Amino acid sequence: MKIGRPVVVVVGAGFGGLAAVKELAKEEVDIILIDQRNHHLFQPLLYQVATAWLSPAEIASPIRNLFSQQRNVTVIMGKVTGIDTEACTLQIDNGPRQGNIDYDYLVLATGASHDYFGNDQWATYAPGLKTVEDATGIRERLLMAFELAEMTAEPAERDAHLTIVVIGGGATGVEMAGSIAELARAALARDFRRIDPRQAKVILIESGPRVLGAFPEDLSEAAMKSLDKLGVTVLTNTRVSDCQKGYVMIGEEKIPAATVIWAAGVKASPAATWLNAEADRAGRVIVESDFSVPGLPNVFVVGDTASAKDATGQTLPGIAPAAKQAGRYAARVIRAKLHGKSAPSPFRYHNYGTMATIGRHAGVADFGWVKFKGHLGWWLWGIVHIFFLIDFRSRVVVSLNWLWSFLTYQRGARLITGNKPENPQLHEAS
Amino acid sequence: MKIGRPVVVVVGAGFGGLAAVKELAKEEVDIILIDQRNHHLFQPLLYQVATAWLSPAEIASPIRNLFSQQRNVTVIMGKVTGIDTEACTLQIDNGPRQGNIDYDYLVLATGASHDYFGNDQWATYAPGLKTVEDATGIRERLLMAFELAEMTAEPAERDAHLTIVVIGGGATGVEMAGSIAELARAALARDFRRIDPRQAKVILIESGPRVLGAFPEDLSEAAMKSLDKLGVTVLTNTRVSDCQKGYVMIGEEKIPAATVIWAAGVKASPAATWLNAEADRAGRVIVESDFSVPGLPNVFVVGDTASAKDATGQTLPGIAPAAKQAGRYAARVIRAKLHGKSAPSPFRYHNYGTMATIGRHAGVADFGWVKFKGHLGWWLWGIVHIFFLIDFRSRVVVSLNWLWSFLTYQRGARLITGNKPENPQLHEAS
Repeated sequence: MKIGRPVVVVVGAGFGGLAAVKELAKEEVDIILIDQRNHHLFQPLLYQVATAWLSPAEIASPIRNLFSQQRNVTVIMGKVTGIDTEACTLQIDNGPRQGNIDYDYLVLATGASHDYFGNDQWATYAPGLKTVEDATGIRERLLMAFELAEMTAEPAERDAHLTIVVIGGGATGVEMAGSIAELARAALARDFRRIDPRQAKVILIESGPRVLGAFPEDLSEAAMKSLDKLGVTVLTNTRVSDCQKGYVMIGEEKIPAATVIWAAGVKASPAATWLNAEADRAGRVIVESDFSVPGLPNVFVVGDTASAKDATGQTLPGIAPAAKQAGRYAARVIRAKLHGKSAPSPFRYHNYGTMATIGRHAGVADFGWVKFKGHLGWWLWGIVHIFFLIDFRSRVVVSLNWLWSFLTYQRGARLITGNKPENPQLHEAS
Repeated sequence: MKIGRPVVVVVGAGFGGLAAVKELAKEEVDIILIDQRNHHLFQPLLYQVATAWLSPAEIASPIRNLFSQQRNVTVIMGKVTGIDTEACTLQIDNGPRQGNIDYDYLVLATGASHDYFGNDQWATYAPGLKTVEDATGIRERLLMAFELAEMTAEPAERDAHLTIVVIGGGATGVEMAGSIAELARAALARDFRRIDPRQAKVILIESGPRVLGAFPEDLSEAAMKSLDKLGVTVLTNTRVSDCQKGYVMIGEEKIPAATVIWAAGVKASPAATWLNAEADRAGRVIVESDFSVPGLPNVFVVGDTASAKDATGQTLPGIAPAAKQAGRYAARVIRAKLHGKSAPSPFRYHNYGTMATIGRHAGVADFGWVKFKGHLGWWLWGIVHIFFLIDFRSRVVVSLNWLWSFLTYQRGARLITGNKPENPQLHEAS
């Protein structure tokens, strides 16, 4: 597939991959961008799809469309199955056929998936949240739980349907738990006749001593208070010992819960295996300070699938801004090499802050030099997320959906679709 | 389940069912509204979901939410499996359990599904458009066809991927074909590198002598011209003799086409079988002039699953306004019986007109006393459909999406999700 100009292959159209491709917009190279999906996903808002606020398309942009004007990019929908770093070639499987793609430079930005810490069988009962399908699947389980609670006459069964357990007290877990509690207490409140959705129990389980462990302590406390106000039960210093159909175990205690959501751990993509490179415990490739792989100066790994430190020794967190900065920097290194110039100045991670929201009225934001919580934290969170949404249309539509939900307490995407294994009867084509 | 007040069971939350329930809002009755899905679907815009304009949630409203204020309604998500008209009881299956529901009055508004005229095996290769899953499935096939065309090096295979056949030249077929042609010629035009999506062939096949057979001839002609402008090939007086994977047959001629969409026929729900009542060829229950079933004065059938004539002998068409009027009338008959009053004046169908749109610049509208075509037809179509969308939020979001598409030529929901049997590799959780 070599056709004269140097070929830069970028795998993964997440925040890191897109940043790398954009940085090379004006270069005389052929960029091949490969992703399994046809869309870039704005993952920070994915929990809002899972909790029926937003539709998937509102936070997903077709990758091809993002680069329709950047003519040095070819987008390929396909799955990488292996890399030969000697021959500088990459195997992809794009459904009907397999193929090889030769590269001069390679940027791997293949992200992460859930980690069940050796208990992969839990995945069936406690799905995680990474893809659009994960989100619509969780949405369906959540909404269906209330339907099933309304149908059943048996109190214990009803209580189990009205118990939702979120495992993991990081930003995703906190945001999910808050949003689910609000769904039950506001959006669904008056829609049932036999049950009172406000009686639903939302339990957030965290193994560490506090939620939002990556935030300063006072913000964790603020988050705990906000969760408490929404009626979420937070269990800290608590570990789940088993997940089965209809319940989770905490030590010897059994919590009947029809809906369990996993937000506890992430595992890197198989990039390290493809490269036969050294990885950390979470499977992330340990990269040099310029994001290249030790011994492979033309191969770069960025984002959630890399374990990286910046020039000051700061470890890069697994969040979108870090992935973007890394992708951009790797592209600059490639550009310097293309032009035979010296490497750019050492990478420094700019921490623009981290934030999380709890329901519709509270948020926490840590900018290092200043912290926010409560209403102001929420508004900041909203403005920043709207600003970073990838296209103009999404910004308008998401803003409107939020405004509408804010004013009416309703949710815009309360849709049960697709096949639900437990209830196939309800889902035959009508 | 009888609890004192008369029980009115309404099956199906389409246009007919909703109208009946609303009409009884102020009555001292217990209304039980049963649907297999949790949402009412605005079917006239479903083709826009299938062609990536709109997200499913934008044309779907949770049924419970529509009636959260009407306290005499209980919504049950479940599937009717049979009716005992002697005992006045109805069997439903709502997933985990089966149950019976007694009724004093019964309104069946269970709609229709696709009819393959005895060739049900075609359904796999030529899906129809009735549910949200049908629409997202077609959207996925359409978008995936262009991805596969981009990947393949083999010209014949590429041409097959770039050929889309729509079978059936009624309103749905015409609207689908126009929208697909525009998708290829505008929204996707610049997004590929190896193929030119504008080369895609869209073929509309109609067995009768003209498209939009239910419209006046000059509007059919206007529609043909508009389709031609968009590059749609219209084959009239043409019958499909076979649908197989990758092609359709027209007599002895084979048309290779990876994407085939069925818009040719509808078949009523099994209401006639449940009731053991007389049905027409399409399976619709032949009802009395008050929509009751002959011999069953407390059972009414409305909408696409009924074959009805109004007091002037006019046959009711299978469109939303007719279903609404019928549902409302049946509820009035029930109300009269509840109060021991005489029946309302005989039903007269008010034909407010029919419309169809062809792409983004043309439409046809027939109001009987006046007809419109071209731009004006399109604008009228748009305004009427926005007006009838069920909730305020949808009106705003759909209007914005249209405005955005109108200005930018883009589509807001270009999302490939879910499992595609032909390409499972592309869809593993990433």
